Amino acid sequence: MRAAPSQEEVRRQNLGALLRYVHVHGATSRAELTTSLGLNRSTIGALTAELTAAGLVSERAPRETGRAGRPSLVVRPESARVYAYACSIEVDTLRAARVGLGGVVLDRRELVRTPGLPAEESVPVLAGFVKEMHQTVPEGSVYVGAGVAVCGMMRGDHGAVHVHPPQGWVDGSLGPALATDLDSNRPVLVNRAADVSALAEHTRGAAAGLENVIYLHHDVGVDAGIIVGGRRLTGHGGYGGEVGHMVVNRGGHPCGCGSHGCWETEIGEHALLQAAGRDGATGPGAARAVVEAAAYGDATAQTAVRQVGDWLGFGVANLVNIFNPDVVIFGGPLRDIYLAAATRVRSRINAVALPAIRDHVRLRTPQLGEEAALIGAAELAFGQLLADPLDAAA
Amino acid sequence: MRAAPSQEEVRRQNLGALLRYVHVHGATSRAELTTSLGLNRSTIGALTAELTAAGLVSERAPRETGRAGRPSLVVRPESARVYAYACSIEVDTLRAARVGLGGVVLDRRELVRTPGLPAEESVPVLAGFVKEMHQTVPEGSVYVGAGVAVCGMMRGDHGAVHVHPPQGWVDGSLGPALATDLDSNRPVLVNRAADVSALAEHTRGAAAGLENVIYLHHDVGVDAGIIVGGRRLTGHGGYGGEVGHMVVNRGGHPCGCGSHGCWETEIGEHALLQAAGRDGATGPGAARAVVEAAAYGDATAQTAVRQVGDWLGFGVANLVNIFNPDVVIFGGPLRDIYLAAATRVRSRINAVALPAIRDHVRLRTPQLGEEAALIGAAELAFGQLLADPLDAAA
Repeated sequence: MRAAPSQEEVRRQNLGALLRYVHVHGATSRAELTTSLGLNRSTIGALTAELTAAGLVSERAPRETGRAGRPSLVVRPESARVYAYACSIEVDTLRAARVGLGGVVLDRRELVRTPGLPAEESVPVLAGFVKEMHQTVPEGSVYVGAGVAVCGMMRGDHGAVHVHPPQGWVDGSLGPALATDLDSNRPVLVNRAADVSALAEHTRGAAAGLENVIYLHHDVGVDAGIIVGGRRLTGHGGYGGEVGHMVVNRGGHPCGCGSHGCWETEIGEHALLQAAGRDGATGPGAARAVVEAAAYGDATAQTAVRQVGDWLGFGVANLVNIFNPDVVIFGGPLRDIYLAAATRVRSRINAVALPAIRDHVRLRTPQLGEEAALIGAAELAFGQLLADPLDAAA
Repeated sequence: MRAAPSQEEVRRQNLGALLRYVHVHGATSRAELTTSLGLNRSTIGALTAELTAAGLVSERAPRETGRAGRPSLVVRPESARVYAYACSIEVDTLRAARVGLGGVVLDRRELVRTPGLPAEESVPVLAGFVKEMHQTVPEGSVYVGAGVAVCGMMRGDHGAVHVHPPQGWVDGSLGPALATDLDSNRPVLVNRAADVSALAEHTRGAAAGLENVIYLHHDVGVDAGIIVGGRRLTGHGGYGGEVGHMVVNRGGHPCGCGSHGCWETEIGEHALLQAAGRDGATGPGAARAVVEAAAYGDATAQTAVRQVGDWLGFGVANLVNIFNPDVVIFGGPLRDIYLAAATRVRSRINAVALPAIRDHVRLRTPQLGEEAALIGAAELAFGQLLADPLDAAA
């Protein structure tokens, strides 16, 4: 029931729309911008001039087209100059990168992380990475903010972070800590890895251009970044997407959450290792080893992969009935399991999901691979700039 | 990535925002409109003048307030003059109403319907109701469109209707048929009863002011109208919300959809009647009779209600984990089962849903009762008017 924007808001919204277009699509001619944004040529010219003056885009003549007439100028994002920091706290890795407008990774650092390390102890490491990268930033560059992807479960964009067991429920405050370490008042936005990975794939990956997306993620548990009608499903308190705790096997294995037969007890790494008779093994490498053993003909491993693939398809079928999505993306270790058991997953979906719904759903693996969370964290930071380019770049 | 609206679009958007406000909240002072819509007094004055000239609202001085100073004029919707037709095709009833702006039922008709009657055969009956009501419409009234709620499953807002088994999959085309019968080119929007009931409760019922809503509905099957971040979840093809086909009991009863153990096989009327040893009984009255027998101490009926309530809570817990909703509303026959087994439902949610999520969720019954679908169908029709008041009222 909000009233319409004022003229000044309209201008900022148009600046944001143009900047977002080149951020997502890269160098774009003025002619294409005119068509795609539905604005007239003089407006596109004026907006481009403002964004150029702010140092956010640059214009140049295109290469010779061979066509008659004056060629349309090409607008490109100032990727080398305008940047965000992106951090990702994963189960076994800490990553940080300097990412230029347009999603270009300009610099990066990573460190193998002791699993179970409390989230707060990751903060000084990541801040150190950022300081290191910061020393080589060319003069005249524009820092727009930072984004952090966190494995586990968390609440809110700025505030308290609850990291999932087995790391303990930590009520840390990553955002403010990083802001202090970066010595900047630019925003530091923190979100779940599942959500930022979904954002990344939706912006420039396997879900680009699709409105209804389920990105399945597996780190300490199984959850999902869900996009409904082009917008992120957050729910009341930011906890939406806890699909790993959908009970699929009533009376099944006990789950860390206190319930039984949660989806993550059937499709998680632990389930795969247990089914393969490798209870003692740990880490993402261990799960991958089972999938590889299956590929090389190990019968026990093959049975384990089929069993987990079966439950994977079963839970996806439920989500497909509930959401009628355009695409389901299998992220993290679920990627390998999906690829090894794709026929099983699809056949389970065909058995359980309604025909009108299942026919349209695409099953995909992430296009951005293990970088998805990092790229998504940068998108979080760029989100502020794209919402109001002149203010955020000031 | 759409560009911002033009000045003309801004004006229409503001007209829509003001009209929507009085449509939802009833008579409202200019002072409150200024505050709530965040527009200045002169803009509110100009918008009100335009809507008054179009005959959509009227203004009058408020009753004596006893306060000093000039009292703020009160703007009210022209409920007696501006109206939509609403129709609802339910399993056992056909309803039609003339509904005034502001959600006031001005006239109504209903007929007990033979269950299993194909959807197309309902069209002439409803059209007849509408023609009858049309004869008594005061001169100078403004018809803005019609909305139709359909039990079962359907696709798209205008087009093909697939009615669920047991009525057979009917590819009828209700929208155009009604448009012809009404002899008007105003839009006729058709949607699932679950979705329009959710819309009605969200606009002026148990979910008013809440952004994340699951409205559970039970007619020929169980489905849900789901609102995520204030917007309806439709999914790729408009099939989103088929929660009745979430499998909760793998290897359970066969379902009409071809799968086994779907939620609707455990919480549907058939399940309740079967558990109560009343397989032969049919109709919504039969299910209510079981709930009443349980209330009067019938042990078999009590066991049946507990069993169905248990599965009801179990499935809701899954949805709560997935959506982190503000509210879950139990509609249709699920209302009685929920009320009879509320403790059971809540205890199941407490056992299965994550603490951070379950703590906030409210469990409610519909405020609009069995009128929800009809009121929601009218809201579908008013949606067009509210999006662009002057065009739709022209």
